[in-house]
Amino acid sequence: MSRWSNPDELPITCRAAVCWEPHQPLSIEEVVVEPPQKGEVRVKFLSASICQTDFCCLRGYKIKGFYAGRWPVVPGHEGVGVVESVGPGVTSVQPGDHVIPSFGSQCNECALCKSSRTNQCLVTNENAVLPAGGTRLKVKGQMLYQLASLGTFAEYTVMAETSLARVNKAVPTASLSVMGCCVPTGVGTALNEAGVYPGATCAVWGVGGVGLSIVLGCRMAGAAVIVGVDVNPDKEASARKFGCTDFVNAKTLGKPVSEFLAEKFPGGFDFTFESSGNVEAMNEAFESCRDAGGHCVVVGGSPVGKNLSLFPGHLLNGRKLSGCLFGGYRFRNDLPALVEKVAAGEIPVDDYITGSFKLSEINEAMEVMKTGKGIRIAITFDG
Amino acid sequence: MSRWSNPDELPITCRAAVCWEPHQPLSIEEVVVEPPQKGEVRVKFLSASICQTDFCCLRGYKIKGFYAGRWPVVPGHEGVGVVESVGPGVTSVQPGDHVIPSFGSQCNECALCKSSRTNQCLVTNENAVLPAGGTRLKVKGQMLYQLASLGTFAEYTVMAETSLARVNKAVPTASLSVMGCCVPTGVGTALNEAGVYPGATCAVWGVGGVGLSIVLGCRMAGAAVIVGVDVNPDKEASARKFGCTDFVNAKTLGKPVSEFLAEKFPGGFDFTFESSGNVEAMNEAFESCRDAGGHCVVVGGSPVGKNLSLFPGHLLNGRKLSGCLFGGYRFRNDLPALVEKVAAGEIPVDDYITGSFKLSEINEAMEVMKTGKGIRIAITFDG
Repeated sequence: MSRWSNPDELPITCRAAVCWEPHQPLSIEEVVVEPPQKGEVRVKFLSASICQTDFCCLRGYKIKGFYAGRWPVVPGHEGVGVVESVGPGVTSVQPGDHVIPSFGSQCNECALCKSSRTNQCLVTNENAVLPAGGTRLKVKGQMLYQLASLGTFAEYTVMAETSLARVNKAVPTASLSVMGCCVPTGVGTALNEAGVYPGATCAVWGVGGVGLSIVLGCRMAGAAVIVGVDVNPDKEASARKFGCTDFVNAKTLGKPVSEFLAEKFPGGFDFTFESSGNVEAMNEAFESCRDAGGHCVVVGGSPVGKNLSLFPGHLLNGRKLSGCLFGGYRFRNDLPALVEKVAAGEIPVDDYITGSFKLSEINEAMEVMKTGKGIRIAITFDG
Repeated sequence: MSRWSNPDELPITCRAAVCWEPHQPLSIEEVVVEPPQKGEVRVKFLSASICQTDFCCLRGYKIKGFYAGRWPVVPGHEGVGVVESVGPGVTSVQPGDHVIPSFGSQCNECALCKSSRTNQCLVTNENAVLPAGGTRLKVKGQMLYQLASLGTFAEYTVMAETSLARVNKAVPTASLSVMGCCVPTGVGTALNEAGVYPGATCAVWGVGGVGLSIVLGCRMAGAAVIVGVDVNPDKEASARKFGCTDFVNAKTLGKPVSEFLAEKFPGGFDFTFESSGNVEAMNEAFESCRDAGGHCVVVGGSPVGKNLSLFPGHLLNGRKLSGCLFGGYRFRNDLPALVEKVAAGEIPVDDYITGSFKLSEINEAMEVMKTGKGIRIAITFDG
């Protein structure tokens, strides 16, 4: 394994977790990482974390805008790393910088990047290759795809400059990988997409990593009531720690959550959020927001083919339904400031990390995440 | 029939169109209209018009926030009249004023009227009675309900002050009844709820009265493309007259409208609108708006029990779904200015009126509306 080799000339040989086909465990492989080409950056990962969306992809689900299902693939889209070398034309980062990649792109040149109405860039990371085509990774002689054009479960990789935000090097990196998706997705959903205001009443379906980040965002905005809804009672403690004022176990209620909430909180919620991707939960969330200004925000990814069924009369009565990616943040612009909030103690990234595994133990880490017991598992690259 | 009787003392006996039970034709009955009580206003109607929502109600559908299905009822929620007398405490109108009633209420005192986030008042007109309870109408000795607490198919009626907007007397009233629902609902949907901007691309499902008003609103906002979609090819001429740049006959396409539009207008529309209340058309409209900022607005009333099915992934990719009542206007504040736009020639109310019938011919008028051939039928009270 050659580290810190001459960046402009030589490929790096290192380890990565590879999924060869859907539903298979990952295998640790020796991979070759070519030098970055024009507009590309070679990054050494310092830590990574596992998101439930990684599982969706590894099960072969195609998620629009995220992953089209190509194999073999390096999974992982949450990570933090240090720039090892840059290709020609790269101006926003240089070797030694700390960077956080995002599954979204921000090219700053397309019509959507120039529009004030969206943070969604026209450069797609859905195809698991780099914008210039292909990847710079090879495993056993064949091209290795990168989930969301990233693939953070690797010691080194090459990503597009447009996928990387440069952040303050002074901030410790051990838990910072959650800033690559989980935290901004949830916090931004509450602050940017919903626009939660002081005194608002909120309910959040699914209090995993993204759901807890929505809770955190609601709390940061000064919400008066934040109800966490989950099917796993073990999540109550972390839900309350992140800011929930109430917790509902959807599994043991004996009635629809919306019915229970309507009794306990008559009139409905100002904001409801769905972070699990379950279409029935989405309907429950929509049923639970109020007429005349209630807003239901969906951020849980659901596979193509699963539809949400809702009563449209609620729309006429003034309810709104929307969603967003990456919390509506333009990550290259906005992540640096969010990472400063980590440094200031406003975003408790360490509280997300409920376990730590070495890259070589990736399958054990995945098993823990599958049980729903952890919030985020950190992957380290020191063994 | 005693007209202009002593307002403070005497009941008025006059004619009204009454529906005795669901699915029955209307019958012209002699009704007694008591003097207005506190906060109420007795109005002599000058003209009225028929909206498709009247039919929904007369078929017995309950529409949330609009009509709970009570009999016998005077239908009609579009009209314009002159104040005959006012009850104690009424300050916003006086005898001789021209008024336009609205199915929404605006009490100016409830939390929702005081909120900047909605035009939906907590005083409901759904129960077909006045806010103080009951109605001031009797037919054959029994209480006569008023559709949406209005019931404009009557020579006289008593309504709540909170249901009436005072408008400029100098504006001719022959076609002005369409300002009571049809025009503001559609124009406001485009201008207030959607916020159509110059150069935007728009598509409108259903180009009846409300749909044409959405088209008009899109045109007023400077939309570059306005596609009208309908199952009735006869509507193409009026659609183009009101501002459509394209017209699609959904019945003869041989494929889903969304598929056809995706070929002709790649990338999707900035705004799509559904005005017919058909849940399949709502899905088509949602499918046809674009990722990353597309907004689908539903204003067609659909009966309780009919659900809309949609792909939630579109929400994550930045599509929004919402709806509104009365175009988001606060009618007592905003109708006066809209009626000035009628006077200025910006809102062509006469173009909506495709036929005129006397109150005694109400069933013939209803039959014409049912065929979908007219936009709005005016009801006159002179015979």
